[in-house]
Amino acid sequence: MTSDIDRLLNLASEQLPDTLARLKDFIAFESISTDPSHKADMQACCEWLVREFEALGMEASVRQTTGHPIVIAHDRTAAADAPHILYYGHYDVQPPAPLEEWRTPPFTMVIEDGPHGKRIVARGTSDDKGNMMTWVEALRIWKAEHGSLPARVSIIVEGEEEILSPSLLGFLKENREELSADACMISDTLSLAPDHPALTISMRGLLHAEITVTGPSCDLHSGSYGGVVVNPIHVLSRMIAGLHDADGRVTIPGFYDDVEEPPAEVLKFFDELNFDLDGFLGSVGLRGEHGEANRSAEERMWTRPCCDINGIWGGFIGEGRKTVIPSTAHAKLSCRLVPGQTADKVIAGIREYFAAATPADVEVKIDYFGGTPAVRVPHDDRYVMAARRALKRVFARDAGLKGGGGTLPLISDFKAELGLDCILMGFGMPDDLVHAPNEKFDLVCLEAGIHSHLVFLDELVSLR
Amino acid sequence: MTSDIDRLLNLASEQLPDTLARLKDFIAFESISTDPSHKADMQACCEWLVREFEALGMEASVRQTTGHPIVIAHDRTAAADAPHILYYGHYDVQPPAPLEEWRTPPFTMVIEDGPHGKRIVARGTSDDKGNMMTWVEALRIWKAEHGSLPARVSIIVEGEEEILSPSLLGFLKENREELSADACMISDTLSLAPDHPALTISMRGLLHAEITVTGPSCDLHSGSYGGVVVNPIHVLSRMIAGLHDADGRVTIPGFYDDVEEPPAEVLKFFDELNFDLDGFLGSVGLRGEHGEANRSAEERMWTRPCCDINGIWGGFIGEGRKTVIPSTAHAKLSCRLVPGQTADKVIAGIREYFAAATPADVEVKIDYFGGTPAVRVPHDDRYVMAARRALKRVFARDAGLKGGGGTLPLISDFKAELGLDCILMGFGMPDDLVHAPNEKFDLVCLEAGIHSHLVFLDELVSLR
Repeated sequence: MTSDIDRLLNLASEQLPDTLARLKDFIAFESISTDPSHKADMQACCEWLVREFEALGMEASVRQTTGHPIVIAHDRTAAADAPHILYYGHYDVQPPAPLEEWRTPPFTMVIEDGPHGKRIVARGTSDDKGNMMTWVEALRIWKAEHGSLPARVSIIVEGEEEILSPSLLGFLKENREELSADACMISDTLSLAPDHPALTISMRGLLHAEITVTGPSCDLHSGSYGGVVVNPIHVLSRMIAGLHDADGRVTIPGFYDDVEEPPAEVLKFFDELNFDLDGFLGSVGLRGEHGEANRSAEERMWTRPCCDINGIWGGFIGEGRKTVIPSTAHAKLSCRLVPGQTADKVIAGIREYFAAATPADVEVKIDYFGGTPAVRVPHDDRYVMAARRALKRVFARDAGLKGGGGTLPLISDFKAELGLDCILMGFGMPDDLVHAPNEKFDLVCLEAGIHSHLVFLDELVSLR
Repeated sequence: MTSDIDRLLNLASEQLPDTLARLKDFIAFESISTDPSHKADMQACCEWLVREFEALGMEASVRQTTGHPIVIAHDRTAAADAPHILYYGHYDVQPPAPLEEWRTPPFTMVIEDGPHGKRIVARGTSDDKGNMMTWVEALRIWKAEHGSLPARVSIIVEGEEEILSPSLLGFLKENREELSADACMISDTLSLAPDHPALTISMRGLLHAEITVTGPSCDLHSGSYGGVVVNPIHVLSRMIAGLHDADGRVTIPGFYDDVEEPPAEVLKFFDELNFDLDGFLGSVGLRGEHGEANRSAEERMWTRPCCDINGIWGGFIGEGRKTVIPSTAHAKLSCRLVPGQTADKVIAGIREYFAAATPADVEVKIDYFGGTPAVRVPHDDRYVMAARRALKRVFARDAGLKGGGGTLPLISDFKAELGLDCILMGFGMPDDLVHAPNEKFDLVCLEAGIHSHLVFLDELVSLR
């Protein structure tokens, strides 16, 4: 490491109290995107961000969308041929409910002692306000010291990530020119341990549908009709039971036809993580292996598709008893998709499956809510390589290259609209209680994150 | 028919306006047993009944129970060796909800024109206040004319039939001596058509349980965990799917072991009904045959046991989407039982079935809510025979002998505690909208019911 970058890292550590003061202000906005009563908080939070970015000498503005506003900023201090990085963050957070489970008020940032040293507790500390501050502070420190950045920097901070970014794609379409860049940097994912950084190099896609099974035209008394009519709950149960075979494979026609096996190199990266499946399952009370036979846990989590019923309901579900044979039964179904699969083809298979499983006197309706394709980040992309080198310099060990089982629609949006690959370099920990009461972000993660982004900027110097 | 009984029948028809005036008063009590806010209405309704029975020259009283009060009355005008009949009715009704679907206020009795002539519309007209008035009015007219009854008559009117008679068994135990009789007469069932009377000669029993399947210790994100954990909704669905085999038979171990086939004579009675299965199913939008293979519809409805899931729920069931793998999934299960089966043995089979179907990492809890055995009324009992003769005299055709698929716990209670068989001679019609908005009772059914009970009393004269 150059002595120059060492000085910046020391500065970052020394200035942590200032960083925390700014984060505390950011946290204080109750920017809950799913709750319309917080519309004014969303706008106020955007205006705060604009002032922050302007303080960094950037052009910044609040842009209205069909949903919550988006903040855009541009730094114009780099050379015209410098790499152009689009930093993405989101200022919205999940609702703090259940409030009674918080030890401290959710929007008042506090510092506590924890197993990894000091930790920052409040809604949004890890997802994503604190994580986002890692690159904001790196940009601030670099620019304060050098007067300019080593890369052209644009920033997009949206307010709808927690509600699946409904306005983002349209916004990217309308502002394609302005937002063009060479790569997108996102700090909204997990590392492996406080001393073990990670880059996420794939995310699964997602498809949503709702199944409605209708039998009798009205709810029936099970005494009068039990034995001579079809029960929609039984039919739906048989349908769900048949969705997986004895090997845990999904039986939807054509489900695996287009599944791409990941490159051997990627599987090797995953293998090197020595993923602690026992610990992962044990923390939620499970011990056994589940899912597709003859596939590693990493494959089942990250590179293999799956199908889950996320909700089921029908008949009488209140307290007590009511012996009804219901007219309808319902299920919410989702599939996690992997590269090669398209939501359109999978939903066609789902329709075929349920139609074939429909007995006489029953109607099945499939409401399809759309899908998001899987994404794979090229692990040898030059910017991803720069991030890997940066993490290695900071942590003195190779970053783990991991997959993500979940879905971030925005990553497909950036790829589809702007042609950008996303560098998923996040500093959250698996125990951050993201979306839950007492969300936290370890101070050591905040500090290491700022350091990593500073060194990433340093790496960009040589990419010019 | 004797000229004396003809005179009484004419009187009953002439006095129908008075009968309707009394029924209107009875209907006006909002005696909704499931709603604690109607406690005072229950008591007031009981006091009204006591005054009615006292007006018939009976000893009557309101008896408090652990739940709603019971009205007891005794007539002492018959000879000591006359048959002793215990008349049963219930003054409680189902809630009128949904109120907006009523054409007229639910507790204000009105007379309308309908397909079978005039009909009486209000909550409780058929179930059971109007049906109960058939024997109250018969007793009134007979006694007014003769000064005494041809049978020793006791009356029990409970206020908890619609909530499964929780206080009745205890009350019968405590008052066994006082309530001893030779037979119990109940008018709370259906006839086949306005001109086709019926006696119900069997009712199925009932067993209730709730199944809870627990997998992970908390709800999981289906992105992070989908593919490596067990999904309780899938497990519960497989369990439910396996409850029936391809022939529609219940697979619970031992389920059919003790099932008694009904006497051939009973099956012949059922066959003679020429039950209109197509019409029965068509009225609820179904066409096909369902249930146990190689059994007639009458058997499947009345003499064969069945098992239904009455409710199912688990995971996210709100509007929109939440990709959760839930910690638990739940189902409400009930079985209709037939003679020979005991609830204790069936629940043991249910426990065995679910235990055997439980995979690794899953716990299944069975909450058992108790059971009621099936009952069969001996169709050649002397009092049942008297009722059959009475119906034939009034309707000039044989009464159909039908089964009932539902469950009336009170019938087992009367048999178990008092050793009484129940004569189920009701005058409701299948389209009475019992428990639903715009409940009605056809005037022709009320009149024929009073006539039938008068002739039944006449039949009792010769049984002395």
